[in-house]
Amino acid sequence: MKTRAAIAWEPNRPLEIEEIDLEGPKEGEVLVRIVTTSLCHTDVFTLSGEDPEGLFPCVLGHEGCGVVEEVGKGVTSVAPGDHVIPLYVPEDPNCPYIKSGKTNLCQTIRKTQGAGVMPDGTSRFSYKGKPILHYMGTSTFSEYTVLPEISVAKITKEAPLSKASVMGCAVPTGIGAVRNTAKVEAGATVAVFGLGAVGMAVIQGAVLNGASRIIGIDVNPSKFPLAKALGATECVNPRDHDEAIHNILIDMTDGGLDYTFEAVGNVELMRSALEACHKGWGECTVIGVAGAGQEISTRPFQLVTGRVWRGTAFGGVLGRSQLPGMVDEWLRGDFSVDPYITHHMTHNQINTAFDLLKAGESIRSVIHFQPQETMTVNTLPGKVVPE
Amino acid sequence: MKTRAAIAWEPNRPLEIEEIDLEGPKEGEVLVRIVTTSLCHTDVFTLSGEDPEGLFPCVLGHEGCGVVEEVGKGVTSVAPGDHVIPLYVPEDPNCPYIKSGKTNLCQTIRKTQGAGVMPDGTSRFSYKGKPILHYMGTSTFSEYTVLPEISVAKITKEAPLSKASVMGCAVPTGIGAVRNTAKVEAGATVAVFGLGAVGMAVIQGAVLNGASRIIGIDVNPSKFPLAKALGATECVNPRDHDEAIHNILIDMTDGGLDYTFEAVGNVELMRSALEACHKGWGECTVIGVAGAGQEISTRPFQLVTGRVWRGTAFGGVLGRSQLPGMVDEWLRGDFSVDPYITHHMTHNQINTAFDLLKAGESIRSVIHFQPQETMTVNTLPGKVVPE
Repeated sequence: MKTRAAIAWEPNRPLEIEEIDLEGPKEGEVLVRIVTTSLCHTDVFTLSGEDPEGLFPCVLGHEGCGVVEEVGKGVTSVAPGDHVIPLYVPEDPNCPYIKSGKTNLCQTIRKTQGAGVMPDGTSRFSYKGKPILHYMGTSTFSEYTVLPEISVAKITKEAPLSKASVMGCAVPTGIGAVRNTAKVEAGATVAVFGLGAVGMAVIQGAVLNGASRIIGIDVNPSKFPLAKALGATECVNPRDHDEAIHNILIDMTDGGLDYTFEAVGNVELMRSALEACHKGWGECTVIGVAGAGQEISTRPFQLVTGRVWRGTAFGGVLGRSQLPGMVDEWLRGDFSVDPYITHHMTHNQINTAFDLLKAGESIRSVIHFQPQETMTVNTLPGKVVPE
Repeated sequence: MKTRAAIAWEPNRPLEIEEIDLEGPKEGEVLVRIVTTSLCHTDVFTLSGEDPEGLFPCVLGHEGCGVVEEVGKGVTSVAPGDHVIPLYVPEDPNCPYIKSGKTNLCQTIRKTQGAGVMPDGTSRFSYKGKPILHYMGTSTFSEYTVLPEISVAKITKEAPLSKASVMGCAVPTGIGAVRNTAKVEAGATVAVFGLGAVGMAVIQGAVLNGASRIIGIDVNPSKFPLAKALGATECVNPRDHDEAIHNILIDMTDGGLDYTFEAVGNVELMRSALEACHKGWGECTVIGVAGAGQEISTRPFQLVTGRVWRGTAFGGVLGRSQLPGMVDEWLRGDFSVDPYITHHMTHNQINTAFDLLKAGESIRSVIHFQPQETMTVNTLPGKVVPE
């Protein structure tokens, strides 16, 4: 079949929308029509060429939602018509890592997913007979995409697909980092470095877990009103201070934070986030993805005096068994995804979404493949970008 | 009063035994007669000049045991005749850190202890009218020493003081790191870098916690028989391999360890210990103290894929409320301290103890202040070094 997809031909080149070929789902695979996708910094990162694992040409996109159109042989957990969220961290109940109960990092298709192909080692996408690679096992920048069965989470049909894309990465990553990785307890103090979508979701997670104080940190103060609306008790712009940000935070909090989160991908901030932790028990959770070859450093004294350095991927969320429940939480009003959605646009405008994200002017741009289907909803948060 | 003490006049100079002046205990202080002291790498480290916090001239020593001789005004928790272990990590029940229940890092006297003085800002030691500094709040290389009340743990009189000194640092640090910091669970796999006394105690702790596999790592294979006697299931000499040690360990354990411990103080090994951890859940605990200005580094990917980097001081043990119970465990045979004790000698031979430790020929040398009192016990482990 044919599908319209935004192709990343090479690093640092704008995406090009092309009608390309898509093979149907093979055994254990699912064909999904993507209804909306949103844009995450990781897509920007890979397109920039900084991502050591980036492979081209490919169809980017890992934060989306859609409808199952067809299932391959042996697929039993989803059926045509089901609403799903693609999972860049799959969940195979037979994976030893998943069975361990200690991690969400399913390894079953790690190698092929990292190589931009389906588990059988081939791509379903091609253009004029030449393969185009998958990306993060999801490739949501295509109207139709094929995924392994273990890479889709079935969600309730009550979730509006005009907004549900942000449940594909940003929201579960931030809330999950607080809930599953750091396990922030009620009354704790929290700081988050970086007030993009993931940082905002950390704030929401901290509110949900009952944190007593939530400090948002960003060099772009235009993020502060939203951070405060979501529950940040204070916001700090490091550029307003001569002193290093971790010292500012230590002073503000009488010794440091109980929990910090780095949601930027900057190795210096990862250090600051650790060193802003309270001696004796403060824990820093790294969420951001750093550039190729970059390293974090600190004096080991920081650890010996009781600070903990950990990290998280997809917020430690088990995609198939936990994400649907998080969607239910959203629908029941435990938290809102509306604040994340600053822009709506069509697939043709996808490069504008990259520009907005890079300029720090958007939190999430939602891209609608069938705008007549989803952009007519006049209750959408954010603004529609005119074509 | 007068006391015979081993003085560290300056870095890298052998200690000199002198009769020096000791002021009696002031309010909230305790005079202790040290019966035995043992030598730890931290003493060697400070004497080497590498310790950024080392101050001279001082009386080193932080691993000892003794008898309370006199108490200052207001001291209620110990009395003359009590057997005690000096604590370089004190425990003040009124310290907010201790009250938090999250850490053993009591801050009450941190600044004065770090400055080599008693809480009132002065030293009790002097020589020809000039002050000699305290060290780690303990200064156990003096026959008599003065400590704050919160810096002594009262232990049962049944504990033989001929051996109990090793309960002042090495044993609780290693066992505590396993028990309190890493919280190793039954069936877990463990590796420990460095088979000195602390590394050996990590092995004992891992056995006590029911670890399924315990790998000892050292470049000195003469440590392996004792490590195995204590419960190591395997020992590895990194020099026997061309491949980096963390890769060797990952291969040996089908993906890495559940828990690793660094008990050397080498920042490269701290990295190896982290990277030898199992993806998804492995945790590295740093115990060793690195040299001035040295830093640990890794790719943040190591954390984002689920490894945890933490550290510990005094094994997370609360000195006054938990160490006496650990002494009881030792006496009831839950573990033995005999394997640590390789040498006995008199106070005059203390520089020999430094030489043996630096050469890797001893685990612990126990120094007896009144050899006629304690070295006559013919059941002592280890050998007596002839004068």
